[in-house]
Amino acid sequence: MINKEDIQNRMIQAVDTVRRTNPIAGSITNSVTINFVANAQLAIGGSAAMTYLPDEGEFLVKAGGATYINVGTLMPIYEQTLPHIVNVIRVMGKPWVLDPVAIGIGSLRTQLLWQFKEYKPTVIRGNSSEIIALAGLWGLDGGTKVSNVRGVDSTDSVNIAKTAAVALSKWTGGAVAVSGKTDLITDGSIIAFSQGGSHFMEKITGAGCSLGGVVAVYATVASPFIAALTATSVYNLAGKRAENNAGGPGSFQIQFLDELYKATAVDIANNPFEIEEA
Amino acid sequence: MINKEDIQNRMIQAVDTVRRTNPIAGSITNSVTINFVANAQLAIGGSAAMTYLPDEGEFLVKAGGATYINVGTLMPIYEQTLPHIVNVIRVMGKPWVLDPVAIGIGSLRTQLLWQFKEYKPTVIRGNSSEIIALAGLWGLDGGTKVSNVRGVDSTDSVNIAKTAAVALSKWTGGAVAVSGKTDLITDGSIIAFSQGGSHFMEKITGAGCSLGGVVAVYATVASPFIAALTATSVYNLAGKRAENNAGGPGSFQIQFLDELYKATAVDIANNPFEIEEA
Amino acid sequence: MINKEDIQNRMIQAVDTVRRTNPIAGSITNSVTINFVANAQLAIGGSAAMTYLPDEGEFLVKAGGATYINVGTLMPIYEQTLPHIVNVIRVMGKPWVLDPVAIGIGSLRTQLLWQFKEYKPTVIRGNSSEIIALAGLWGLDGGTKVSNVRGVDSTDSVNIAKTAAVALSKWTGGAVAVSGKTDLITDGSIIAFSQGGSHFMEKITGAGCSLGGVVAVYATVASPFIAALTATSVYNLAGKRAENNAGGPGSFQIQFLDELYKATAVDIANNPFEIEEA
Repeated sequence: MINKEDIQNRMIQAVDTVRRTNPIAGSITNSVTINFVANAQLAIGGSAAMTYLPDEGEFLVKAGGATYINVGTLMPIYEQTLPHIVNVIRVMGKPWVLDPVAIGIGSLRTQLLWQFKEYKPTVIRGNSSEIIALAGLWGLDGGTKVSNVRGVDSTDSVNIAKTAAVALSKWTGGAVAVSGKTDLITDGSIIAFSQGGSHFMEKITGAGCSLGGVVAVYATVASPFIAALTATSVYNLAGKRAENNAGGPGSFQIQFLDELYKATAVDIANNPFEIEEA
Repeated sequence: MINKEDIQNRMIQAVDTVRRTNPIAGSITNSVTINFVANAQLAIGGSAAMTYLPDEGEFLVKAGGATYINVGTLMPIYEQTLPHIVNVIRVMGKPWVLDPVAIGIGSLRTQLLWQFKEYKPTVIRGNSSEIIALAGLWGLDGGTKVSNVRGVDSTDSVNIAKTAAVALSKWTGGAVAVSGKTDLITDGSIIAFSQGGSHFMEKITGAGCSLGGVVAVYATVASPFIAALTATSVYNLAGKRAENNAGGPGSFQIQFLDELYKATAVDIANNPFEIEEA
Repeated sequence: MINKEDIQNRMIQAVDTVRRTNPIAGSITNSVTINFVANAQLAIGGSAAMTYLPDEGEFLVKAGGATYINVGTLMPIYEQTLPHIVNVIRVMGKPWVLDPVAIGIGSLRTQLLWQFKEYKPTVIRGNSSEIIALAGLWGLDGGTKVSNVRGVDSTDSVNIAKTAAVALSKWTGGAVAVSGKTDLITDGSIIAFSQGGSHFMEKITGAGCSLGGVVAVYATVASPFIAALTATSVYNLAGKRAENNAGGPGSFQIQFLDELYKATAVDIANNPFEIEEA
């Protein structure tokens, strides 16, 4: 039986531990939103470090508690860096978070995401289209071969990705977070639906990317499911609060970072979510 | 005879169509202002996607309604990516916007910009120095061989670029937008002078780069001249409004994104501009 | 004997000259904070230009009054670009600022930083760990071979880097700025301790990186020591003022840019600092 209070207590512990210990989660992430990822990680109490080169990535994997890989704006060197560091991650047995952003665009992205199947990301975060496409690429239930991924936008609602998310979680043994109007987080046996956020989150670039970075910070101190749910909850809480004081997407983003910083562990754990068995 | 009201009606239609359809304009742009470009494109209702690799660029050209190329911080891979995608753009017959930023700096930049002549960018956006230098590089009227481009600053006033801008427009069959205190937009037969903006736009990085990205979004739904004039108008309107609530360049940039988001189609079309025959 | 009033007068002159002449300091810097570096340089009245390629870097060195090199997110091309441009800098006899961020991570970073010893950076800026590690790499007093650099965070207080900072200054004949709760600036014979700043500066990414860029702008018009002290003083002043109106790290960063822009030369020179002989 699922105990919601137990989940909330573990979320509180994750938030507090991060604020107390400032754990590093190194990132290899896209250049569009790299600054926002770092600032979001800092705002919730973590530390940030970004890199491109293979041996530097290896260093960050070893130095950090978890690693965040976002395949946004791939550069040629990533063909060496990413396979190398997922291998180091596996050898070290450390958690990592994958954002398969823009899956379906370009051969290197497809090749890398295909390779990642064997390396079983601890948490996968994406919108519905991306989650369905990744399950398709990996030949899992709920996936489709032909993605209707449209740039980095989601064109699907979150529920249509439920089967794919559960299948991905069962394959990796970790968690999957699907971003949408309501967010879905699953570890393959439990599904949580998290409420909140703001329509402005689609009017700024990087809400999803930075969420992945924040999941990675929590994954340094919590289980994959708790890390994904805690990160999603603080995003939904901060998004809702930020919208109240925002005059547009510019001021929303600033308020959002402030609210990430100010949110208490109890408020985060109490941000509305429902749970069901998968 | 030029009908100003007709121009304004087409501007209103461009603004509304973008807000209703959220068209994608993919970008290959510099890393300094890449986040601001994306956020400006989102603020006016468009969608954004950035990339570096040749086959990903090709995908974005095919998926998007227009493409934005800004040669700011060139990376080695651009030697392959940019010639490849302008060729795809030409084959597809799609619009594209060129920002020849920092023309004159480095051999790859010069080589690429020289090659682009045959590919006839739909809209060219730059400050006076850059427009004059591009006309010079392409051997057109009003250009000079020796650019006095000073980093990314404009050291010339907009009127001295009039001949170059008209010559470029006549060559490409598209439009040219010259940014300055007053902005000049021409399609080779009409010249519009757009008023507004703020002195703070020179105190933040990326006002010009992000304007190019916004032109590309409007170019997905409007003619080159209307796209360039609409983008310039919303920038001048939002800049003027943002200055009223700004305590400095930091808050100006935030207010500016808010005002891009809030500006109505009618307000944008009514932002002061004058027209004359070229 | 050290004359504090003379130092303050030279700081005032540096601030005013930058505001009047908008000097360019070109940068090769990391992609995480590249936008913040440029915006900080613009806010204090300078001009910004960033690049990656060897010949473009050479152009910027020649066009600018000083150059900023931050080894944050190294890309493969930097193996060619950085040795080339430090050589051009030496031939031209121009000032440059080095931020040895994340020293100890990766072989290219170590190789480059080791090479830079002979090129004697005009100003070196880092936190205590980085300054100690650089002195160690260069075999100077106060350095340690084994760095306890933890990502880009400082884990040491500023005083433990005093010997290393003085040794580095004596080697280069320039200045060293060590960032911490109190900041230490030395030219090898004088040591200044600058007060102010905000706890929020550790909750945003790029406070240190952008400080390096601002030092480079002042280094176009002032001595290494005055450039480093002036930049540190405006940072400490703007940080303290920004904190008063900040609701969190998001709004802090915005206020901080506004305060950089608004700070008067006299206020900057009067920001508290003490001096002693080294």
